[in-house]
Amino acid sequence: MEPGGSTTLWWDSGAGCLCYIEQTLLPNELVVVECRDIGRLATAIRRLEIRGAPALGVAGAYGVALATLTSPSTSWEQFLDDVRKGAAMLRSTRPTAINLAWGINRVLALVETSENREQARKRALDEADTISREDTACCHAIGHYGAELLPESCTVLTHCNAGALACSSWGTALGVIRSAVKAGKQVRVIACETRPLLQGARLTAWELARDGIDVTVITDSMAAQFMRKGAIDAVIVGADRITCDAVFNKIGTYMHAVCAKHHDIPFYVAAPLSTFDGKNREHDVVIEERGREEVTTMGNRTFVPDKAAVRNPAFDATPMELVSAIIMENGILRPPVNIQSLLSCTNTK
Amino acid sequence: MEPGGSTTLWWDSGAGCLCYIEQTLLPNELVVVECRDIGRLATAIRRLEIRGAPALGVAGAYGVALATLTSPSTSWEQFLDDVRKGAAMLRSTRPTAINLAWGINRVLALVETSENREQARKRALDEADTISREDTACCHAIGHYGAELLPESCTVLTHCNAGALACSSWGTALGVIRSAVKAGKQVRVIACETRPLLQGARLTAWELARDGIDVTVITDSMAAQFMRKGAIDAVIVGADRITCDAVFNKIGTYMHAVCAKHHDIPFYVAAPLSTFDGKNREHDVVIEERGREEVTTMGNRTFVPDKAAVRNPAFDATPMELVSAIIMENGILRPPVNIQSLLSCTNTK
Repeated sequence: MEPGGSTTLWWDSGAGCLCYIEQTLLPNELVVVECRDIGRLATAIRRLEIRGAPALGVAGAYGVALATLTSPSTSWEQFLDDVRKGAAMLRSTRPTAINLAWGINRVLALVETSENREQARKRALDEADTISREDTACCHAIGHYGAELLPESCTVLTHCNAGALACSSWGTALGVIRSAVKAGKQVRVIACETRPLLQGARLTAWELARDGIDVTVITDSMAAQFMRKGAIDAVIVGADRITCDAVFNKIGTYMHAVCAKHHDIPFYVAAPLSTFDGKNREHDVVIEERGREEVTTMGNRTFVPDKAAVRNPAFDATPMELVSAIIMENGILRPPVNIQSLLSCTNTK
Repeated sequence: MEPGGSTTLWWDSGAGCLCYIEQTLLPNELVVVECRDIGRLATAIRRLEIRGAPALGVAGAYGVALATLTSPSTSWEQFLDDVRKGAAMLRSTRPTAINLAWGINRVLALVETSENREQARKRALDEADTISREDTACCHAIGHYGAELLPESCTVLTHCNAGALACSSWGTALGVIRSAVKAGKQVRVIACETRPLLQGARLTAWELARDGIDVTVITDSMAAQFMRKGAIDAVIVGADRITCDAVFNKIGTYMHAVCAKHHDIPFYVAAPLSTFDGKNREHDVVIEERGREEVTTMGNRTFVPDKAAVRNPAFDATPMELVSAIIMENGILRPPVNIQSLLSCTNTK
């Protein structure tokens, strides 16, 4: 298994199902789930067995392919209705990450313009495969451009998991780190644990330690003091959605951006073009609020009294003025961000 | 039991022992421990059964009193040696909070200048009682001055627990909130959970909910976004040590101070004069680094892979330029801080 090159989400053509690493069980158990219908996939996404914006794009695409394979309908209209309903149900599982809807819609459009079920099934699966291949290629391109931004020897802080587990392989923010290491740079990583669901502690630390990359886990609240002590050379995070005015990413990202600005540390966002939302601005985007128990409970312990209220927004918005650069598959984009700059940013630095 | 006025650490003269609420079991179990010797007290402090800077001052004082009561030595020299050894052992349990050493030393000085064991025992216990009474009076005075800084209706963010559980009653940061509520102000509290040991979620939420004060728990990483959304009117925290150039408090405090500054929100520190360290500057103070398992494990679950490193500094330092005001028992001090300003700050605002 090539370090970091391991795939975390793939189509098993022999078994005719979508396979994925069940992320809620990491780092303690490595379990691969075989998923055969879109309903199970929706549950998996809602439960965060699969998470990470690019991975959701790939999963959404395969979800529509699964819907075409499992619809029992014999009439074309009924078949289309089944697939559309499945797609709508899947789309509703996570409102903030744009990639999920993007992957679903891209495959659904091909299904809707097909002439019959056989063609629809083939085109859906082919398109999902293409999206998966594109995702991997994107991550490597992002890694290539991002690696050039890092000094020869540096400590990079990251939040949540924008790694192979958040994509179908390699990763976006962690792809940059992997590419830098592959290019011979000495990169040490500070992984913020990322409360409440600890994707940094559980997933980022697992991925990087498995690859032999130097990784240290801290609580989210330690990051600012590490910056103050000069222990952080750059912050790199992924993104769930990027509008012209803001980067939506895991709750806590904004705090790191403010503190990075205060300490004059570059704050980079690594994300594929599919993360861009050219239609909306920050105030149009719904921030998913998740259940109380994610904050109050861990393992067998509840540690918030019942009488206290709890808030649990899953994401926050970082205004573009705090972003030093966005690392994309076609180059480095420095804010301000507009459609013009997006189209013209190929290979500029 | 008067709301919020409840004592959390006290001497039971009938039983001849120190009683305290065992804080590691909250909010799920309310257990009062009867402590009869300084060795058990040292374990309790190391295990954080008792924590919070002012509470450590009171506990340290009673610890020396316990040592005078339990020394079996018949010679004065041997007795003094026992008490001094106990005091040194107790002092070494937590290096950062200055109040612990302060409480120990204040009682030890009286023991050392006593003429015999009987006098030493009486003076030690009397002095510890005095420190306890002073602590409660301090908290009420801090509450009085601090309450005047808060608007009639406001939302206050706090970190860790600087409440009745961190003192012997009422609290410093939470004392300000209690005094404001008592004065008729509408105060809502955002309690940051305070990783890794969750004193905010477990203790602050428990104390305030029990008093009927509106409290909402968030993860530490959410605070900045709440500030950005205009949901926070002020930040109030306690302190474990204050030098002329920095406030030492629970890890994460600095992050809140940076973010409060960025959003132009006042950042207040509520602490008694006994927290001031006039001898040292920031770089002289040792930050306690605690065990890996506090970060990696909760309840029955370990969620950091063994191969990943972990850091766990218990405190951070907030430079004085980020502090809007220090709320003390003799008034409000606005930085810059020097001994002159400390001596002259009585009742100035």
